[in-house]
Formats: sequence, C-alpha cells, structure tokens
Amino acid sequence: MGKVFVNIGLSLDGYMAPEGMSLENWDNPTYKNWAANWGALMGWVFNLQYFRDNLKLGPGGETGPINDMIRYTTERIGVSIMGKRMFEGGERSWPEDAPFHTPVFVLTHEKRVPWVRPGGTTFYFENRGILAALDQAKIFAGERDIRIAGGADVIQQYLNAGLVDELEIALAPVIFGGGRRLFENVSNSIPSFKIDRVLGTPLATHLRYVRA
Amino acid sequence: MGKVFVNIGLSLDGYMAPEGMSLENWDNPTYKNWAANWGALMGWVFNLQYFRDNLKLGPGGETGPINDMIRYTTERIGVSIMGKRMFEGGERSWPEDAPFHTPVFVLTHEKRVPWVRPGGTTFYFENRGILAALDQAKIFAGERDIRIAGGADVIQQYLNAGLVDELEIALAPVIFGGGRRLFENVSNSIPSFKIDRVLGTPLATHLRYVRA
Repeated sequence: MGKVFVNIGLSLDGYMAPEGMSLENWDNPTYKNWAANWGALMGWVFNLQYFRDNLKLGPGGETGPINDMIRYTTERIGVSIMGKRMFEGGERSWPEDAPFHTPVFVLTHEKRVPWVRPGGTTFYFENRGILAALDQAKIFAGERDIRIAGGADVIQQYLNAGLVDELEIALAPVIFGGGRRLFENVSNSIPSFKIDRVLGTPLATHLRYVRA
Repeated sequence: MGKVFVNIGLSLDGYMAPEGMSLENWDNPTYKNWAANWGALMGWVFNLQYFRDNLKLGPGGETGPINDMIRYTTERIGVSIMGKRMFEGGERSWPEDAPFHTPVFVLTHEKRVPWVRPGGTTFYFENRGILAALDQAKIFAGERDIRIAGGADVIQQYLNAGLVDELEIALAPVIFGGGRRLFENVSNSIPSFKIDRVLGTPLATHLRYVRA
C-alpha cells in the first residue's frame, strides 16, 4: 500500500509561500517582491538536472544526492492531490505537458470533466472532500505513493485527519515575515512524527519525518 | 568583538514554548499538558552530561558531539539578555546558584538593584530598552559572546533591529498546534542568514545560521 506524503519548501519562519504570491498578482512579480522571495525559497531546486529536465527548462544542471532525492520523490508519486487555488496557479504556469505525468486530484466545488494533458497528466476534479479524494487516489496509485501537494489548507486538512504518513520539508534560510504558513490550524492531537533523515546542503536543509 | 546569538529549541511548527506554559500555570504542569510538551521539545538536552552537571541534576549523562556543542555554546556566553517573563519563570525553577555563572541582563520596567547569586550569576535589571542592554552587555562580555536568551518578544526585537549575528535552533519533531511562536512580528527586511552547520540526531536537528 502506498504512503501519503507531503513534500514542501519552507522558509525558516515557517511559510510555504511568501506574501503577495497569489493568482491576482501572477503577472505582477514585483508585488511585495513575491517572485524573488519564492525564488530564494526554492533556489535549491531550479538548477537540479532532474527538475530542469522535467520542467523542460533546458539541458544540464546539477547531479548528486539532492538530484537523486528529487528524482526518487517525483518517481514514487502515483497520484498528487491539490487544492483549487494551487491548480489555478499551476494552470497558468505549467508547460502544456504538465509536470506530473500521473493522475492529479483537484479538490474543488467546481464540477468539471477530467482534463487530459499530453505527457500522461490527467486532472480529476473532486467535489466530495479530502477522504473521497484519497480513496480514489489510492485506487489510481496502486503500489505507488500519494503526494498531498498543497496548498497549506489542504495539507492542514490531511494532517488533522491523521492521514499523512511522511512529511518532507526543504527548509531554506530565508525569513519572509509573512505569507502562507504551513503549520496553522493544526491540531495538537495529530499523530506524532519522528526524524527519519536530514540532508544538509548550502541552500536548504532537507528534513524527512515519518509517523512515529 | 563578541557575537550576538540566539539559541533556542523549536517545535516543527515553530513554537518555542507550548500553549499553557506560563507563570500562572507553573504549579499546574498538566494544564494543557504543557510540561509534557516542553519535555518533548527539550528532551534532547536533559540527558546530556554537561547539562546535567550544570543544573545539578546528578552525575552521568551522554557525552559526544551534542554534549560538546552544548558545552561550547554555554562557555562562549559572556552575558545573557532575557525578558522579564523568562526571568520570573526561571526565578522559580533555577537552583540557588543559577545556571548562568555570568552577568544576566533582564529587560524590565521594574527598578531593582542587581541580584547576586552564588556561583557567579548576577542579574542586572535594565530599564532602558534593548539597545542600552546590548551596549552594557558588550562591555561586560569583553571577547565573549552575548546570548539573547528569550522570550520570543525579546528575540524578535533584536532580530528586527538587525542585531542578531547567529541563530541556533534545535528543531524537535513535535507539533504543538499552538503556543509561543519564535518567528512572529518579524520584519521581512531583517538581514539575511545563511546555513552554517546542521547536526542531525534522533531527537532534534541542530541548525546553525549566521549572517549572510
């Protein structure tokens, strides 16, 4: 049976997205400096060979343990689950062959037929909430794992429901002072995690936690 | 010239103290389970040989790299600076020879003569704010370093004033869901930090950041 995991970039002060990074400011990257802040948060990933290849950003890029980690993380995903806002942001920035190459469940109240993209990504629009989405995702994922991709509210819902098996955080040495917190509205009675692995690099600390 | 540093235990969701941990609940450790939560946050430190020795908790304890780190961190401190609430909590729980063995500046509006403890700790009650406290501390500390001990609001004031050179965080795999956040009311324009060192252990990840 596949694992349910979260893999997210986090600022040192706990934000997974800087202030001002939202759909209405998508074409205004200097608004509250959101694009530069986002770049600082995720800078560790942009030059990895596997990431560049997957997003068609061009040849070359770094290889090594972090690149291997990203390849492993990406290839173990059988299904991604995301919120509607995250989908709408991606809809505007992903290439035509969206970088998932698997089924993706979008939690939304909108009724919409599945959207098939070239390259193997199909978006399914799930109206029945997080449990139904996960049940469906498990059937589609088979032996592979399920990534709760975001946003923060979706991750929080799955955490609070006790449904997250693994938590992977790339902690970047940036302080935003505001934005969208990962850990907010999280119950103090969710299942415990233990440290599974720490990978230190100059640009981010890669923390992996599994259910204790 | 000495460095100004913060060294703090942090929950995975960013709290340096659990909900319910305050002076009025000091004698009620089961209130919101604060004492057990605090124990889970700081569990990595209690069995270290140096820590046990310093707090007179008895002989024995673990030696090794984390014990060496704690010894180094403690011995480089020439002066600690703390807020009034933290002092008042400590006043009730520290042994008679308080565990600092250096001057300690307490930021407070209270006018009070210095309080000399056996073992080398003297508490000075500073009424003129964070800058005056730091100026005084530098004179007392000489070549040694200055620790901004807490609480959260005091650390935030020094961070926002751009006066913190080094940030050391012991990130424990606990999720509190509430409490006192370290990073709150922090300006997004404070000086940048870079990763200096990461020490992974089963109970906490020891992160060290220095000014970029």
